[in-house]
Amino acid sequence: MENTLADLILNRGAERRLKRGHLWIYSNEVDTKRSSLKGIEPGSQCRVLDSRGNSLGTAFVNPSQLICGRLVSRDKELDAALLSERLHSSLRLRQRYFNAPNYRLVYGDSDWLPGLVADRFGDHLVVQVSNWGMEKLLPQVVDALASLLNPRGILLRNDHQGRSPEQMPLVNEVVYGEVPEMVPFSENGVALLAPVHRGQKTGWFYDHRDNRARLNQWIKGRRVLDLFSYAGGWGVQALANGADHVTCVDASEQALQWCQENAAHNGVEGRLHTVRGKALEVLKAMVAEGEQFDVVVLDPPAFIKRRKDHKSGLAAYRHINQLAMRLLAADGLLVSASCSMHLKADELVDCVRGAAHQLGRPAALLASGGQGADHPVHPAIPETSYLKAQFVHLGKRGA
Amino acid sequence: MENTLADLILNRGAERRLKRGHLWIYSNEVDTKRSSLKGIEPGSQCRVLDSRGNSLGTAFVNPSQLICGRLVSRDKELDAALLSERLHSSLRLRQRYFNAPNYRLVYGDSDWLPGLVADRFGDHLVVQVSNWGMEKLLPQVVDALASLLNPRGILLRNDHQGRSPEQMPLVNEVVYGEVPEMVPFSENGVALLAPVHRGQKTGWFYDHRDNRARLNQWIKGRRVLDLFSYAGGWGVQALANGADHVTCVDASEQALQWCQENAAHNGVEGRLHTVRGKALEVLKAMVAEGEQFDVVVLDPPAFIKRRKDHKSGLAAYRHINQLAMRLLAADGLLVSASCSMHLKADELVDCVRGAAHQLGRPAALLASGGQGADHPVHPAIPETSYLKAQFVHLGKRGA
Repeated sequence: MENTLADLILNRGAERRLKRGHLWIYSNEVDTKRSSLKGIEPGSQCRVLDSRGNSLGTAFVNPSQLICGRLVSRDKELDAALLSERLHSSLRLRQRYFNAPNYRLVYGDSDWLPGLVADRFGDHLVVQVSNWGMEKLLPQVVDALASLLNPRGILLRNDHQGRSPEQMPLVNEVVYGEVPEMVPFSENGVALLAPVHRGQKTGWFYDHRDNRARLNQWIKGRRVLDLFSYAGGWGVQALANGADHVTCVDASEQALQWCQENAAHNGVEGRLHTVRGKALEVLKAMVAEGEQFDVVVLDPPAFIKRRKDHKSGLAAYRHINQLAMRLLAADGLLVSASCSMHLKADELVDCVRGAAHQLGRPAALLASGGQGADHPVHPAIPETSYLKAQFVHLGKRGA
Repeated sequence: MENTLADLILNRGAERRLKRGHLWIYSNEVDTKRSSLKGIEPGSQCRVLDSRGNSLGTAFVNPSQLICGRLVSRDKELDAALLSERLHSSLRLRQRYFNAPNYRLVYGDSDWLPGLVADRFGDHLVVQVSNWGMEKLLPQVVDALASLLNPRGILLRNDHQGRSPEQMPLVNEVVYGEVPEMVPFSENGVALLAPVHRGQKTGWFYDHRDNRARLNQWIKGRRVLDLFSYAGGWGVQALANGADHVTCVDASEQALQWCQENAAHNGVEGRLHTVRGKALEVLKAMVAEGEQFDVVVLDPPAFIKRRKDHKSGLAAYRHINQLAMRLLAADGLLVSASCSMHLKADELVDCVRGAAHQLGRPAALLASGGQGADHPVHPAIPETSYLKAQFVHLGKRGA
């Protein structure tokens, strides 16, 4: 390694997690007497050393962050050449495990590219950046993606909350070629349209692909309620796989319009109902009216965004799971999901257990799913695993 | 509830776990001063009361066991009528989630039938009983299964180790109709033969169905090593799904012969190699010879049978995972499974992490699987969840 980078020296013992494969450095792990964090420009790359002076690699550094360093390599700087190598590697993995070019192509730390997310919708890419280190490399990222895939267009969706802590500017713009309003792609064999410019995150949540595939097998002839439906990831796929009818609930009229568009795209709009409203309020009204479904999909936004929200978030999961169960007919199926990194898999199981128990209904967990192979979990970074979906069969009361 | 059953009175507070939905009573939870365990005949049904005299339900009781009681109902005795109701309920669940009549029909506690396992291979059933309570009901179990499914035959495979602690006699016999040596069935669309009379457990391991289905999608053109292959659950399905060639390794010549039969049944025997030997020894020899595969399936028997074997078992998992990884080509896929209830999912991930790290190869966890929907997990009984399969993509050294 060339020695042009500033050094970041860690406290004694602070190298252990990194040596096990983790990539994050917390600000209290830095020996600030030997290597002051002050004066380091956010996004600089630094050489990371243990207390004895042994090199641990190169990291993006932002002195104002709790996670002040993110390793980008064990031995060199992340430059255009290494960036290109990493992207090739990401693509090779996806091409090996996916038949169609629709997937998360880059998933941050798991792809050795901290702060970078890129979703591929066939010929179109949507990119998000969440730290200053990657932001500085953005021109090279765009160049590398363009030369790797020769896409029709690359959209930069840098208007997300993840940029606020690092005080990065919010930007939403096409940085290469052209990107239409609704981008065509497919998931689990169903043709869909992703609202990439104005939708949530990159426009689509690829992470639930496998869980939706599982539900698709069990949906024929069923009456389905899809809560927090967004653009119909679950609901429209359910219809395309033979669900009797689907009710999509979302607080956003725009999201429900996208649901309708996706349903029409598959010729199944006649079996789609949409209800605009807050999920909790709609649930309560449906319970009061005695409505019943065979399948309820409960895929809410993260109720536990920060660790300190754990207690209140857990209570929210309990509450909404119980309401959802009240709408399930005997031998019904609840798909209970959580994208909260801070909610443990066991805690979600316990929410389900408690809710079923309180209703006096026997519950059987049929399957437990996570994020798809395009969101690979880094075995040394538990934080890269966040998605949970429990498939819960619910018997009749007292059985 | 009629009061003809003996009472089992619990210590103060010991009802808590049961009230949350668990079904097991440990011998140290019984107030033996008020209700002596002595003199209770193994397999009797007793009324279970908390310390205040409130009824908690009815349980199978065996005074000589650590788990001395297993609830069979919250309010009544398990008799022929309730047994029949429970079996109907089990069948209804399977019929709802499976297209073909090949599955675990009864999975003990999860189906409210402690000590009973019944696997269905189309018109044939294989039954196992593991406690005296269920043993006493065996004639009723056979009658109820016969009247529920009108099968061609029911085989009782009560020659398993699980019966030793309760000192139950070992029996292997057809108790209804006829059951051929090799029973035809299908899994994931592949026609197979289960050696029900002489094979392990019930003759087939249905629990890995979903994990095999996942691998089947990723197997085309691959060179595959299937360790602890038994009758070819993974290997033959891989061949039927287009694997280039598969090497099945098993210590049992008989198991390898069943592999061959299953391969021939699918017309793919030309691409099957079999190696008889202990997995560790075969692995070491293959490493020494520099053999390489694209996919290695590592699905060993439980290395941690009892909690006290945890440390040595964990070391065994670490060791064999590392050996298996040595045989993986760059961008190879390891399927690392464990059926040890005492090995936590996180511990298996850490085995994989540690092994990859030691070899200096980047690992990405593509998926994490468990047991299929015919082995439902009871949300209040963590012990009903035992199966784990990690799908690990392994890059090239130093990448």
